[in-house]
Amino acid sequence: MSIVRLSILGVGLLGGSLGLAAKRSMPGVRVVGYGHRPVTLESALKLGAIDEATADVVSAVHDADLVVLCTPVGLFDGLLGQIAPALKRGAIVTDVGSTKRSVVERGESLVARFVGSHPMAGSEKRGVEFARADLFDRALCILTPTPRTDPAALDLVDTFWKKIGSRTTHLAPDTHDELLAGVSHLPHLLAAALVAVQDERAMDLAGRGFLDTTRVASGDGGLWRDILLDNRDHVRASIDRLKTELDTLSKHLDAQDTTAVKAWLDHAAARRDDLARRSRG
Amino acid sequence: MSIVRLSILGVGLLGGSLGLAAKRSMPGVRVVGYGHRPVTLESALKLGAIDEATADVVSAVHDADLVVLCTPVGLFDGLLGQIAPALKRGAIVTDVGSTKRSVVERGESLVARFVGSHPMAGSEKRGVEFARADLFDRALCILTPTPRTDPAALDLVDTFWKKIGSRTTHLAPDTHDELLAGVSHLPHLLAAALVAVQDERAMDLAGRGFLDTTRVASGDGGLWRDILLDNRDHVRASIDRLKTELDTLSKHLDAQDTTAVKAWLDHAAARRDDLARRSRG
Repeated sequence: MSIVRLSILGVGLLGGSLGLAAKRSMPGVRVVGYGHRPVTLESALKLGAIDEATADVVSAVHDADLVVLCTPVGLFDGLLGQIAPALKRGAIVTDVGSTKRSVVERGESLVARFVGSHPMAGSEKRGVEFARADLFDRALCILTPTPRTDPAALDLVDTFWKKIGSRTTHLAPDTHDELLAGVSHLPHLLAAALVAVQDERAMDLAGRGFLDTTRVASGDGGLWRDILLDNRDHVRASIDRLKTELDTLSKHLDAQDTTAVKAWLDHAAARRDDLARRSRG
Repeated sequence: MSIVRLSILGVGLLGGSLGLAAKRSMPGVRVVGYGHRPVTLESALKLGAIDEATADVVSAVHDADLVVLCTPVGLFDGLLGQIAPALKRGAIVTDVGSTKRSVVERGESLVARFVGSHPMAGSEKRGVEFARADLFDRALCILTPTPRTDPAALDLVDTFWKKIGSRTTHLAPDTHDELLAGVSHLPHLLAAALVAVQDERAMDLAGRGFLDTTRVASGDGGLWRDILLDNRDHVRASIDRLKTELDTLSKHLDAQDTTAVKAWLDHAAARRDDLARRSRG
C-alpha cells in the first residue's frame, strides 16, 4: 500500500511543515489540510503545504490513505470520534502528540489501524507561516506500537517518517512517556521554575548562559499544560528524582566536601559532553 | 592617573582576552602577563595578548598601575600575599572572580587600593588560544565597592572596563553573590542535575531543547566547585527557593488544576520573553 491521499488535521507549524515535506519527498501525493480558521488554511494553500483545504473534518479524511493528527493533543479525542466512521477501509491514522499513553489508548479504541508517532521536531514559533519543508530532516521520530498495532500499518508509518527525512525508533507508549518526562518535560518545567524564582534585580544580570538555559520556558503555555497534566505521574517522579539530586549536592555543600562537589560536577559535564559529541555525529 | 603598565596575572581565556582588548582600546599601554606554564605565556606573546611574559609574580606587578587577577579564584589568596609588598604606591588591584564577598574581603585586607570586578563574559572554552579582543564588548561588568573602597580607584577601574568595551554596574559584594546565586550558579547546578538524573535510554532521545538547557553543565568542574562552595549559603537558599517552586507546580499537577498549571507556565514564559527582548536591545 502506498500513500496517494494524505490528510493533515491541523495546519500549524507542524502540520504545515509535514505538508511541505511530504510534497517535497513523495511525488504525486495529494495533501488535504483541515483547520477551523480560514486564514490559516489560505496561508497553507499559498505556501504549497496543502493541495486542498477544508473546514469539514469528515470530508478532510474522505478517501485518505494516511491521516495525521497535528492539532493540540487536547483536540484529538473529538477529532478521532468524528473521523472514525468516515475513514475508508484500511486507512491508517497517526499523530504528532508529545505524550503517547492516553493518545494511543484512545486512538486504538476508536480506529482500527492507529499508530502513535512523536516527531521530536518543533520550535518556540507557532503558526503555518513558520512551516519549513526541512523541519523533520534528521529529527528523531518515536513510534509507539502496542500489541494491538497492525504490523503493516506500523511499517507504513515508519516508512512515511523516513521518507519525510526523519530517523525513527520504536518504544512502548508508557516507556515513551517515562523517558520524555525526564529528557523533555522536566527541562521545560525547570526552565520555567528557574525564571519564576529570580529576583527582579537578578534578571538584569542575566547572561547568555541564563538565556540558553531558560529558552524552552518561552514555549506555548497551553501545549505544555496539556503535556504536564497528561503525563503527570511520570513528571512528578522526574521532579522527585531531581529534588533528590539537588539534596545530594546540598549535602556536599553543607559538608564543604570539595572532592564530592567536584566529582558531582565532573560526572554531569562528562555526560553532557558525551551527548553533545553524539548529537553532532 | 592613567594606566601605562597593566599586569595580568593568569593568561587563559579571560586574561588573554583582557590583554587583547586593552591593547586594542588603550594605545600605549604596556601589558605584562604572569603565568606558571611557559607554553601559555609563549602563546599569549605570539597572539599579541601581552607584551612581556614572566613566571615571577613579583616582577610581573613591578611598577604596574593596574593589576588584574585572572587565575582561578582559589589562587587569589596566595597571589595577593605575594604581590602586596611588591606593588608600587598607588597601584590598584582588581580581579575577574565569579564570587565577590570572600575575594573582596581578602583583597581589602592585603592591598590598599583593591576593587572587586566580575565581568560577565566567558565561554565553556578554556585556554589563551580561545582569547578574543571582543570577549568583553557589551558584556556587563559588575564592580563591588565597599565602604572601604577608594573612590578614585573605583573610578579608574570603572573607566578601565568601559574602555575595554563593557558596560558596568555597582553592587555590594554580598548583593552580588546573592543575585548571582540565582541567575548564574543555580542555572549551572540545575543543568548538571538535569543531566545526572537522566536514564541512559532517555539521553538517546535528547533534542535541541535538552542540549540548550544543559549547555552550561559542560563548564569547568574545578571553577564551578570553587564558586558553589565559596557562595554556598546563597546557593543553598536558591536551591530551596527552586524546590519550593517545584512543590507549587507538583501541587497543581496533583490537583489536576489546569488553570493553575497554565498560569504558572504563562507567568514564566512572559518573564522569559521580556528578558529576551531586553537582552537584544
